[in-house]
Amino acid sequence: MALKGNAIIGQSGGPTQVINQTLVGIIKEARKHEEIENLYGAVHGVAGILGDNLVDLGKLSYPELDLIAKTPGAGLGSVRKKPTEEECMSMLRMFQAKNIRYFFYIGGNDSAETAYIIDDFAKREGYEMVVYHVPKTIDNDLLVNDHTPGFGSAAKYVAMAFIGDNQDNKSLGGIKINVVMGRHAGFLTAASILARQREDDGPHLVYVPERDFDFDNFLKDVEEIYRKLGRVQIAVSEGVQRGGEPIYSTGYKDSHGNIQLGTAGELGAFLADFVKRELGGRLHKKLRVRADTFGYIQRSFPMQSQVDAREAYMVGQKAVEYAITTGKSGSVAIKRLGKDIASYKAETFITPLESVARQTKSLPSDYISLRGNNIEKAYIDYVLPLVGELPKMGYIEGVI
Amino acid sequence: MALKGNAIIGQSGGPTQVINQTLVGIIKEARKHEEIENLYGAVHGVAGILGDNLVDLGKLSYPELDLIAKTPGAGLGSVRKKPTEEECMSMLRMFQAKNIRYFFYIGGNDSAETAYIIDDFAKREGYEMVVYHVPKTIDNDLLVNDHTPGFGSAAKYVAMAFIGDNQDNKSLGGIKINVVMGRHAGFLTAASILARQREDDGPHLVYVPERDFDFDNFLKDVEEIYRKLGRVQIAVSEGVQRGGEPIYSTGYKDSHGNIQLGTAGELGAFLADFVKRELGGRLHKKLRVRADTFGYIQRSFPMQSQVDAREAYMVGQKAVEYAITTGKSGSVAIKRLGKDIASYKAETFITPLESVARQTKSLPSDYISLRGNNIEKAYIDYVLPLVGELPKMGYIEGVI
Repeated sequence: MALKGNAIIGQSGGPTQVINQTLVGIIKEARKHEEIENLYGAVHGVAGILGDNLVDLGKLSYPELDLIAKTPGAGLGSVRKKPTEEECMSMLRMFQAKNIRYFFYIGGNDSAETAYIIDDFAKREGYEMVVYHVPKTIDNDLLVNDHTPGFGSAAKYVAMAFIGDNQDNKSLGGIKINVVMGRHAGFLTAASILARQREDDGPHLVYVPERDFDFDNFLKDVEEIYRKLGRVQIAVSEGVQRGGEPIYSTGYKDSHGNIQLGTAGELGAFLADFVKRELGGRLHKKLRVRADTFGYIQRSFPMQSQVDAREAYMVGQKAVEYAITTGKSGSVAIKRLGKDIASYKAETFITPLESVARQTKSLPSDYISLRGNNIEKAYIDYVLPLVGELPKMGYIEGVI
Repeated sequence: MALKGNAIIGQSGGPTQVINQTLVGIIKEARKHEEIENLYGAVHGVAGILGDNLVDLGKLSYPELDLIAKTPGAGLGSVRKKPTEEECMSMLRMFQAKNIRYFFYIGGNDSAETAYIIDDFAKREGYEMVVYHVPKTIDNDLLVNDHTPGFGSAAKYVAMAFIGDNQDNKSLGGIKINVVMGRHAGFLTAASILARQREDDGPHLVYVPERDFDFDNFLKDVEEIYRKLGRVQIAVSEGVQRGGEPIYSTGYKDSHGNIQLGTAGELGAFLADFVKRELGGRLHKKLRVRADTFGYIQRSFPMQSQVDAREAYMVGQKAVEYAITTGKSGSVAIKRLGKDIASYKAETFITPLESVARQTKSLPSDYISLRGNNIEKAYIDYVLPLVGELPKMGYIEGVI
């Protein structure tokens, strides 16, 4: 017989455009199962459990839930916190007092670790409960999963922003650098290549943290493209590095042999200054170099990818189903079915909490060009189904 | 009898999401009038005329035109250039050689000035032609016009970005500063208040270039809101100033009486550092302060406001109609009809080129709060019809 009692849901880590789809997936599915009596939301994840800050999710109407599902950001509030042993004990006391038998934690690898720690603690203390981690992260870096909810919508924003910015860059020319989220994994930055609709469309160069950044090759590549098109659109991951250090701290040896360190901590400003200084005189007396950092809008712009929204809902729903039918803790993971874009489908499976906790994955090498300055076309087959259709741009022949 | 001959269209200044609606409005209308024989596009505005770089716009099919209309950026390429007398002569020779009798120039106040200069030169040289300026600017700062094409779509982007970012800020708390385009006029930054759907929604503070920025009041206001909500979302125009100087160069006298100058030229980074330094210890030992600069995506994200798209098309169409029926140079301006949002309508009228050239307008004082830290609700009636419906956010009672 399945475990019966109350349930808590929490959200953790950086929010996404669809993290509330997962929340609503859990709520709606939980309402179908009599094993779950009362359903509470922990306000700001484990911080809400520790501070006894819970909301009753039973009160929300179905129209309210549908609106919440479409709302970016963590509807319950989020947190970045790894509980200590003491805090685990305090949470366990609360679970016991409120007869909490199910805990669903929506988040990335750090949240999976938190779920694992709590589950492990409850087991050691002999308290019977089911802890489920439910995946989300725009970084797309969770192990075991083919991809993660949240990534598709952020990738859609990045692709759309590059589509528009490519037209802007084309209008006035010059060099445009766009810094995309991703401290360790280049998946999101790589999605910028979805903006290419015609041969001369940007991004013309793409740099991810998985490869060491080479200043000399970078300058050569920028110059070559600029001489051909009069413009260059560049995508750079915020985590782009050299020997494990952020590139603005590693220094560049200029033509006089002097090492120049970046003065600005900000990557976009640093790279724009660098390009202007090194290429400005040679390419154009008033070389136009601009940089934008996409920032938090990437993960919060109120625009969901349909596939991403559907899958985010599905992982929530499946977490409840798995938790109740197996009576064991675990994490929901996503597997891809279908060999190409047309036949794309996804399904879920159960994976142990520890298999997605702590460690993360990187953009596979075969998606990155040998020179480390571009993303291979094969990546489009991977990412496009998660993003969906993008607006097609018009074109006037003869305008460069 | 109306003047008969060939026509040239050019685009100038910073592009917008709908500048190609105007281009297509001109092209489609021109095709209806036999006074216009061949229709050329000047590639990169006056630079294309000077360099004899024209494209034949007669070749574009209607489906191609419909796609171009939805494409952000200047389809013909843009330029920032004020022609000299010599260049005017060179352009005039080209107009004569190609029998150009109509010139349509899409742009802001600088482009209106260019149109005025060319018109004036042609008149002085006795060459009969009609020069029309067609308005566009996301800054919404053209004189005579109630508002300008391009503004509504950029305002929609800003409102949507603030809606999503408000949810993101709410999720993890802390202070979030968003820098919005607008060096001299605060219209676009003011549009951020469209993001407010509930009482505690951001932006909680809004700063525009029309008022001197007061560091002390700013800190007091940020602290007060933070103590109430645990978070603050702030909108700042890129042109925010004190005594006419960018605020990061004016310095702030700290509690010890020392003047502190901003080290970073970048406004967002400067304000974030400033808030962290001055309030960090007092409000929270690890006060979370973040800044995003929306950048070029504001004017190029492939998402048009429907009203803006329609009006951008209309000003193009009307420019051709006015040029042919009056046979005189001028500029198309927009007038608002209807007293409220429900009855909103706009129509065009003719205004002299010099009336919109050079000078610009500012956000009217009655839209700015007395303390200079907010925008009055009355502004919503002005801006909402231009932006259209925005996504409604869900909400879970009890989550702060």
